[in-house]
Order: sequence, then structure tokens, then C-alpha cells
Amino acid sequence: MKFGVIGYGYWGPNIVRNLMNMEGVEMLAIADTNAAARKRAHKAYPSVTTTSNASDLINSTEIDAVAVVTPVWTHYDLTKQALEQGKHVFVEKPFTSNSAQGEELIELAERKNLTIMVDHTFLFTPSVVKISELIKEGTLGKLYYYDSTRVNLGLFQHDINVLWDLAPHDLSIMNHLIEATPEAIVATGQGHLNGHEDIAFMTIYFSDKVIAHINVNWLSPVKIRTTLISGEKRMLVWNDLEPDEKVRVYDKGVKITNREGVYDLLVNYRSGDMWAPHLDQAEALHQELSYFVDCLSSGRQPFNDGSSGLRVVKMLEAASESLSKRGSLVYL
Amino acid sequence: MKFGVIGYGYWGPNIVRNLMNMEGVEMLAIADTNAAARKRAHKAYPSVTTTSNASDLINSTEIDAVAVVTPVWTHYDLTKQALEQGKHVFVEKPFTSNSAQGEELIELAERKNLTIMVDHTFLFTPSVVKISELIKEGTLGKLYYYDSTRVNLGLFQHDINVLWDLAPHDLSIMNHLIEATPEAIVATGQGHLNGHEDIAFMTIYFSDKVIAHINVNWLSPVKIRTTLISGEKRMLVWNDLEPDEKVRVYDKGVKITNREGVYDLLVNYRSGDMWAPHLDQAEALHQELSYFVDCLSSGRQPFNDGSSGLRVVKMLEAASESLSKRGSLVYL
Amino acid sequence: MKFGVIGYGYWGPNIVRNLMNMEGVEMLAIADTNAAARKRAHKAYPSVTTTSNASDLINSTEIDAVAVVTPVWTHYDLTKQALEQGKHVFVEKPFTSNSAQGEELIELAERKNLTIMVDHTFLFTPSVVKISELIKEGTLGKLYYYDSTRVNLGLFQHDINVLWDLAPHDLSIMNHLIEATPEAIVATGQGHLNGHEDIAFMTIYFSDKVIAHINVNWLSPVKIRTTLISGEKRMLVWNDLEPDEKVRVYDKGVKITNREGVYDLLVNYRSGDMWAPHLDQAEALHQELSYFVDCLSSGRQPFNDGSSGLRVVKMLEAASESLSKRGSLVYL
Amino acid sequence: MKFGVIGYGYWGPNIVRNLMNMEGVEMLAIADTNAAARKRAHKAYPSVTTTSNASDLINSTEIDAVAVVTPVWTHYDLTKQALEQGKHVFVEKPFTSNSAQGEELIELAERKNLTIMVDHTFLFTPSVVKISELIKEGTLGKLYYYDSTRVNLGLFQHDINVLWDLAPHDLSIMNHLIEATPEAIVATGQGHLNGHEDIAFMTIYFSDKVIAHINVNWLSPVKIRTTLISGEKRMLVWNDLEPDEKVRVYDKGVKITNREGVYDLLVNYRSGDMWAPHLDQAEALHQELSYFVDCLSSGRQPFNDGSSGLRVVKMLEAASESLSKRGSLVYL
Repeated sequence: MKFGVIGYGYWGPNIVRNLMNMEGVEMLAIADTNAAARKRAHKAYPSVTTTSNASDLINSTEIDAVAVVTPVWTHYDLTKQALEQGKHVFVEKPFTSNSAQGEELIELAERKNLTIMVDHTFLFTPSVVKISELIKEGTLGKLYYYDSTRVNLGLFQHDINVLWDLAPHDLSIMNHLIEATPEAIVATGQGHLNGHEDIAFMTIYFSDKVIAHINVNWLSPVKIRTTLISGEKRMLVWNDLEPDEKVRVYDKGVKITNREGVYDLLVNYRSGDMWAPHLDQAEALHQELSYFVDCLSSGRQPFNDGSSGLRVVKMLEAASESLSKRGSLVYL
Repeated sequence: MKFGVIGYGYWGPNIVRNLMNMEGVEMLAIADTNAAARKRAHKAYPSVTTTSNASDLINSTEIDAVAVVTPVWTHYDLTKQALEQGKHVFVEKPFTSNSAQGEELIELAERKNLTIMVDHTFLFTPSVVKISELIKEGTLGKLYYYDSTRVNLGLFQHDINVLWDLAPHDLSIMNHLIEATPEAIVATGQGHLNGHEDIAFMTIYFSDKVIAHINVNWLSPVKIRTTLISGEKRMLVWNDLEPDEKVRVYDKGVKITNREGVYDLLVNYRSGDMWAPHLDQAEALHQELSYFVDCLSSGRQPFNDGSSGLRVVKMLEAASESLSKRGSLVYL
Repeated sequence: MKFGVIGYGYWGPNIVRNLMNMEGVEMLAIADTNAAARKRAHKAYPSVTTTSNASDLINSTEIDAVAVVTPVWTHYDLTKQALEQGKHVFVEKPFTSNSAQGEELIELAERKNLTIMVDHTFLFTPSVVKISELIKEGTLGKLYYYDSTRVNLGLFQHDINVLWDLAPHDLSIMNHLIEATPEAIVATGQGHLNGHEDIAFMTIYFSDKVIAHINVNWLSPVKIRTTLISGEKRMLVWNDLEPDEKVRVYDKGVKITNREGVYDLLVNYRSGDMWAPHLDQAEALHQELSYFVDCLSSGRQPFNDGSSGLRVVKMLEAASESLSKRGSLVYL
Repeated sequence: MKFGVIGYGYWGPNIVRNLMNMEGVEMLAIADTNAAARKRAHKAYPSVTTTSNASDLINSTEIDAVAVVTPVWTHYDLTKQALEQGKHVFVEKPFTSNSAQGEELIELAERKNLTIMVDHTFLFTPSVVKISELIKEGTLGKLYYYDSTRVNLGLFQHDINVLWDLAPHDLSIMNHLIEATPEAIVATGQGHLNGHEDIAFMTIYFSDKVIAHINVNWLSPVKIRTTLISGEKRMLVWNDLEPDEKVRVYDKGVKITNREGVYDLLVNYRSGDMWAPHLDQAEALHQELSYFVDCLSSGRQPFNDGSSGLRVVKMLEAASESLSKRGSLVYL
């Protein structure tokens, strides 16, 4: 499987490094419009061709698959060209700038029998893999909520607000973990510096009384990456900044009994052991790219395919609409 | 100054204990409809009269001031009776179940020349006192946001939802700290057990691009009491669960310069020292009750008076309206 | 069972409070040479007699048992008098100022058929109870070490050094948890202010390659109460300052295999789940005093009896000897 | 300046990476007896010669300086050969297996007018640089103690015990920070698995009542890297595992006044602000290697020279002697 990578800025080097060390993969070319980036790429991988022109990769008949690791507003064009040239595409999140673009690309890929994978790397972290297992096994019981805080100082993006920058992580994780159907979204937020919102909050109403909330912020003095997920049987805290024991499962719960009248209801709190399952040390991006190669070889459709990426874009669109009204309920 | 206390459940004993040890205060009577509560009160303070009937206190000609430490839905009636009998009133937060009640009580107190103080205890904690000083001195610069997370397991209230239970803390603190004017509120949330929302989120839009957010939750496996407050010059984290160094001030900031076009803007991040000011060890409730006694003696109007309590109730009403629509923008 | 308490300073009030609320116990009298202490005692418990003279309690024919909650150097005299007057004695740790005193008191108690309990409160904390269970059940496997850090700012004691002040906690816990025999002690330390050591370190060599270490310090800017206990099968961390999950058990270990030559040995690290058992919320001192009353009623010998207290004193003596030589090995 | 590096195992790659990117430095050759290591080196740096034979580097007339990044027991031979061939030497800590070797190498280097630098990397971390400044400026006042805990699970070394593996970090830092003279050492410890001590404790007595203590352990379930340093005026905690604010300075202290008799002494505790100075993000090894190159160019003697490395070895020897007697006082 022969690869080209478009974009060698912040994230591209990680993709190239993983592809370089992967069985059955050959890294042929790297494209970046920035000369300094090309120079860095060449120094690190003298054997790989570098070019300023993405079309060189896209049109190359040697290349089977292309990774698009560029700003969001370029995803649609580059992915479209690549698909048209018969390339499979691994594209950064968020998939596209709007859902119409996403739908068109999905349709094009289907027609050409090509695979799109959207890089929702977090789905391949040992933490999310473990949480997903716990939920599927029923360890948490019926889900109550997903509440994530993802804040730090910067990095301010120039073309998108903090919601489009940071919330895709949580939206993709949520969609992966929660079986209930997302129904409506409310988003609020404020920009203070460059016009784009730098702090934003998003509530997603699901069926079955499941609710999700996402707090994203580029203006926080401290970095926080904490997600609370509670269910009827157990509750968990995922603190991604913990060096070990990122996921802690609490055998805690609340039961309301003897509900004969609102003032007679008895609330029972259960508080048992806490348990932090051992997590593998695997690098998520390596797992994801291996899975991409596997899917291409086997013809299997990845679960983080274009449709999955599109769902996230639709949620971001709904959030943007709500945000523009300073917080109205927008149905999905 | 002679006091009676109505309600000796969870919080009442703290009020009684503080009044018992206060210079110039005499604790005369405790009322509680619950016999076990009265028994506990009598055992702890044999010299204080106990009664099942709040009217005994309210009508007593010996008593100057009454503390109303009962469920929210009883505040209006008890406060009204006490004011009518010429008593000053120290009443639990939230002040009343709705703003009409609050307005009526304020008007009544004014007419009778009596003082209402609403027990927003947090305003008297060393942390809030210090944060207030820092903001007033300009240490933080122009405020950007207030973002608070106040979650834990329980205690489920029977008569109110989690917003009415926990958000009054943040609403009163916010109103105390933020000079800008609150303009509109969006609230979302979900109930899972007894009909009332057990998890809720609230955004408050202020003038001058200040935004506040409150995350309250009775279904969290862990207790979190963390507030981020950022300004143009500095940012702070108030973690009320830290035994020491509850307030940490970060000399961090972001500056956008050279804004000639959206892609040329330069974002400068500043990251300097962190500093945790020493905080007094004073008990907030003691400070507050002393202040109440001072206000009564001097005839001064407390800053946490009825009007201050009413502002919080109006915000809760707006939040309830928003919540009932699953998150629409409600103007204040 | 009728009690008198001698000493109403820092710890005495906790003992009185617990005895006041205990079934089958009557608190008759409190002795303290300090008038302010007596005043506080009287205010809190008007029904209890207060006296400046410990002999009043000791000689009272009404009193069955005496709690000695005074500085270490007074323990011997007061306990001896009490035993001579036929009283059971609950005495603060450390038991006595030297082992000769302890031996005499034990012998006297035996002769008079009276019970001595030494107040090693930590043995009754839910944490130590749980750790003891885990070790007895074999969860940790063969023990490797016990390593405790117990540091904070102050409280400087006037009559004893930091080792006699803080190490008795760990020594009693260690003796309770470790089955192997303590064989020898090395202690080092330094005084900086009042002549007594304010920082000290103690190593205890046990049989079977078990080793214990205690780090105590009155000059630490932060409070630390962390104990590591490792065994062949599992390891645990007890952090007494954690509000929840004070005890965390790690399924971690090291195995050395294939030891054919020093450079060919293979070290295998095992790293599995972490688990924090739920702990009861019981107040340790209440549990201990109940147990004392039980022992008196049933004639059972408490496990934290005079002999147990004497073992701690002997270790402190050995440590003092080692410390005076700046760290020689002293056999027990 | 042309470099060769001997040893490309765990630490060698970091040295090579830094030298590759350093102005005025040319990396010519890497030696390692392990074929897999050589293969990795070649893959990462195809332009650098690799060899199985360290003598190839040492005898090369092109090479000016050699980095010896091999097990301790090989340091003496390799460094000696390199010095004899006129090479400057950058050698891993601990410098040598015993002090006689160290003395011989220092003498040889002096005779040949060559420079030895011992790789005590921690001295170049932003944390130690800052702490050193704080102490030199008098911020802490007269020093009281240095107390370090450096524990984790593994890595078991085959040729040395935990003291020789982990304590050199603290010994070099201590020697760098503390002006008083180290006078005597007491070490205790125990081995449980492969004969070498896997847990050990070391007290170092200095002049002027300064005391240091080092707790090292390969059998800890959790990683701890915490050092307390207290002085008369201020105290600090250095937690090397904190992502930010590694160094926290506490404006805390104790003063003993009015010392007319042991029971009348007054202990005053002062507790003021905490302050975490901003630290640079510089990579310590890069700083150290730049400094090495600077010293070679300028002919300046590095402060972490052979003599500095020898002081650490002498302390380790004294500790080993004490350890072999299970903890006697050994004078330096």
C-alpha cells in the first residue's frame, strides 16, 4: 500500500512517522506549500519525495492512498480530487466545512468504490477502547450522561472557532459510545479576541433521557481533559492527563424507592469500590492507521468512515446555528 | 440582639452554633417540626427553648431577629410572618420560590424598616473575598468569563431541581464579582430519577462580552468544586476542595497582534508565574452572621440583602423557563 | 462503666465527646490543671464535674476507668496511681517515656487484674482495618516493605522530638500489619530550632527481608501522609489525605526469571488494574473507645494493650539511642 | 568539534539526537556492541558511521570528544582509553565504579589537558537552575534540609543496586545546591529479588545542621519524584512529575521565641503565599551538551567535571559501606 501525505505542519509528521514504520506500507511523497515544512520533512526522511504541490501526489499513479492533514477549509477540495484520481483518503477531523461537502464526498467515494476514513484519533486511544467495552458489556448500565471538559490556553485557530477545533473529539467519542439517538443541540459561547468564539458550551439531547455536554475553551490557565460518564449501575471519570489510571470506574449509584408521594421518596446512595482498569500503552494513531490499512486490504468499511465524520459535521453545523442565536434548540 | 432559629436540620445547627458563640447575641429559641431535630437541639443547647411551632418564635416579643433555615417553599410564608411581627430575617438561599414573593417581601421589609439578609454564605469565604479583591484591584484585567463546575453524588432535593439547589451559590458569587450586566440566560439539563433535573448547565450572557457558565450535577461519582475566572491580564482557578491554596492566580494571557488579515494575525501567549495568595482561615458563616448583627446594629443595608437574593431568584426563574424549552435564550 | 478523663487540651475533648455519646458509658469527671481548659469543658458539658486535680478522679470510688490524655512524661505517674486505685486505664501514645516504666505498669495491671489500653487510634481507622484485612487474606503476598512519610509544619512539642511525636503512629501500625519480627533500628535526624530533632528518619529491619522506613518532619511546607506497602503479589498506597479512596491497591509486581548469570537475568514487570476498596466512614476513636468498653465488659485483653504500647516505646528507645550516635544499628 | 558516541541503548539516542542538532558539532560515529542498537542508529542517522568496536572511535584521529554512555563498570576503561588518545570525555553518571578509578582519570585528564564532564543532567533542568538561583539569592534563608523521594517500579539494573542507580541524581543536585560540607553518611536498605538492594534510604549529615535524605526504590507501585527543601525563611517543594509549576515556594516558617525555659518557649508559625516561578521549557540535556561544547571551546572547566563526579562516587562508596553494615555512620 503506497501512501502520500498532504500537509506536514503540526499533525502531519506524526502520520508520516507512523506510516514509515508500518508493515506493508510505503511512504512515497509528502506535499506541503510551506518550504520550511518540506525542509524538515526531507531532513527527517531523505528517501521520501517532497513537493509543494498536492496535485503531484494526487495525480501520481503509484500512490494508492492519500492522507489529507491540512486546514479544514481545504479538506473538501483535496479529498474530492484524490477520490477522483482513485485514491483512498484518510482525512483530518472535522471531515469538511459543511455537511453538503461531506455528503458529496461520501457519494463520490461510494461510486468510485473507495474508502474514506476520518481521523478521529481518540476513538483508538486505549481509554476510549476500554470505555467502549465497559459500556457494551453493561458495566455502567443504562447511560445517564456524558460530560466533557476540554480546556487549555490556545492554540487559537485562524479559520475556525473553539467548537470546531476541540468539540469534534468529544462528538466522535460520544457518537461512538452512546447508543441513543442524538436529537437536538444547544450551543452557547463567546469570542473575546479574534472574532471566533474562544469559549463555548454545547448540550446534546439524546433519546432515552441521555444528555451530553461539552465545555471547550482556548482561554483557560490550566489544561483540563476530564470526562464524566454516568450510568444507572456505575459511573466513570476519564482524566486523560493522568499518566496512569486514566479511566476510573466507581461502583456508585442512586436509587429512588418507595415513591408514594414526592415528599416520601427515599433516595438511596450506593458507594462501593473504585477500580482503574489497566490500559494498553498503544499509540492511538498507530492503531488507527493500521486499521485503515487493514480496511483497505480487506475491503471492510471502517467505523470511522465518511458517514461517521459527516455525523460530527452535522452536529457542528447545528451547534453553529444555535451559537449564532446565542443558544436556541436546534434539532438534528 | 436576641435570635430565634427556625429549622434545625442540615444547616440550622451551624447557624445556631455560630450564634451561640457570638458576642452581643442571645440565642433564645429553636423551632423545628421534627421531634428528633428538637431533641438534638435540646441535647446540644439545654438552655435554649425548643418548639415545634415556628409561630412561637415569630410571635415572641423578646426576639429581634429570626433565621429561616427551612425548605425553599416555606421561605415566603415564614419570612412574611416574621417581618409582619417586626423581626429582622436571615433567610436561606434561594430567597424565595419565585420573584413575585421576593418583591413582596422586600417591599414589606422596607415599609417596616426591617432588614432581610439572604444566606449566600460563599460570599463570605476567604476565597471569594480574595477573588473579589483581586478583581477590584484590576489584577485580572477586563473579565472574560466565569466557568464553574459544582458536581457530586446527591444530595437529591425533593422539592427543587439541581439548578435551584446548587446554582444559587454560583449565581450569587457571579453577581458579586462581575460588574457587567447579566442580559440573558440559557439552561439545559435532564432528570433521570425523580422528575427533577439532576444534571443541568447554565450559560449567562453579560454585557461587555463577559460570559458565565455553571455546571451542576447530583449524579457525579466525584466531587468537583472548580471555578475558572479569566481576564485580559491574568487568569485564576479556584478549587474549593484544595485544603490549602484554594485560589491560584496565573500570570498568563493571550494577545492578538498585527491583525492585517485573518491569516496573518499573530497570537502571542504569555505564561509567567503562578501565585496562590494566603487565605484567612475564618469560617464564612461566622463572618456572615457577624456582618448581619453589625448591619442590624448600625442600620446599614447588607450587600446580600433581599434585592441581592431576588436577583438570584430572577436568574433561576429565567433558567427554569429556558430549561422547560430545553434551552432557549431567555432575557432577564 | 463510669469514666474520668485527665487532660482536656488538644485531644482530650475528642475522647470526652465520644464517651458522652457512647452507650453504657457515663462521663463523670474531667481533670485539667489549666483553668481555661476546665472552663471550656464545663461550657460544653455542664453536667460533668471538672477539677484541677487529677487525684480527685483517680481516688473517686465511683469511677471505673480513667483516660490519661496528658503529655508523655506524666503518663507513668498518672497511670500508676490510677491502677493502684483499681482503675482501668486508657492512655495516650506513646505509652511511657521509657520501657522500664511500661514494664512496671504492665506488671502492676496484671497483678491488679486491670486493663491498660494504649491509644493507637490509627489502628482503628477504616484504612488500617482494610489494609490489615488485605495483608491477612494474602492479597499483597509476602511483604517487602512499609515506607511512610508523615510530615507537616509543626506542631512542635516541647518535651519530645519529632520521632516520639509522630513515629508512634507508624510503629504501632507496622507492628499491627507486619508478621515478621523487628530486629534492629537505625535512626537519623537533626534539630534546627529548639534542640529536639524536628526532622528524623528511621529504618526498621525485620526478619524475612522485610524493611520499614519512617520519615517524620515538623518543618515541611506541605502536609504529607503517604505510606507505600509492597508485597510479592501486589502493592498499595495509603494516602490518608485523600478525601476518598485513601487506600489504592495496585496489581503490579516484578519477577526475576531465568537467572543463569547476572547479565542474563530477566526482569518481568507486571502492571494490571488499580483498585480502591470502599472504606467505612466510622470515626476511629469511637471504634477504639467502644472496643475498650467491650474489653472491660468481657474481660478480653485488647490487642492494643500495655504490651503493644511497650513494643512501640522499646522501638522509640532504640531509635533514640541510634539517633544519639547519628545513626548506628541498634538491635531490639 | 567532532564527536563519537559509545553506547546506543536507553540514553545514548538522546545524546546523539542533541549532538546532531547542535551548532558547531559534527556527529561522526556511534559504537555499540549490540547489533540491533547499531541497526536502529543507522536507520535514524544514515550519515553517521556505526561500529561494534568502541576502539574505532577512540582511536580515530578525526574525533575530538567522546561520549561514554555505557554501564558503570565500563566507564573507567573506556574513559581512560579515550583520554589516552587525547579525547575529551562526556561520561554517564555515576562517573566510575569506585573513587580510585575516578581519581586516576581526573589526574590523567589534567596531565593531558583534557576535559571530563560527568552527565549529571538534572543540574541543567530548569527546575534545578531555578532552585539554585533561589538559594543563592537567599530566598530560602539558611538551609535546614533536603529530602528527596525518587521511587517507581523498576528499571532493575543488573550490575548496581538502587542507590547507585537513582541516588546519583540527588547527590549531584545536593552538592550543587548545598554550600555546607557533607560530613558523614548513613545508608540502609534491602534487596528482595536479585541480590542488589531494590529499596534504600540515605541520610547525609552536613556542617551547619544541614541534613539531607534520599529515598530510592525500584519496587514502588507509583512513581514519585518529590523533593522538599526548607530554609529558615522559606520552604519549597519540587515535584518533577507536575507538568507545570514543578517548583513551589512557600512563604512559611517557624520561629521559636522567648525561650526562658523549655515549657515557656513560644513557637510561631508563619504561613503566607505560595508562589510557583515560571520555568523555561529548555531540554536539560541540550543545555548540558551545549555547555560541554562551550567549555571545550573556551577551555573553561565545567562545574560538573570529574571532581564533581568523584564527589558523588565517594558518597556512594560511603553509602555502600554503611549499607553493608545495615546502617552505620561513615565519615566522608
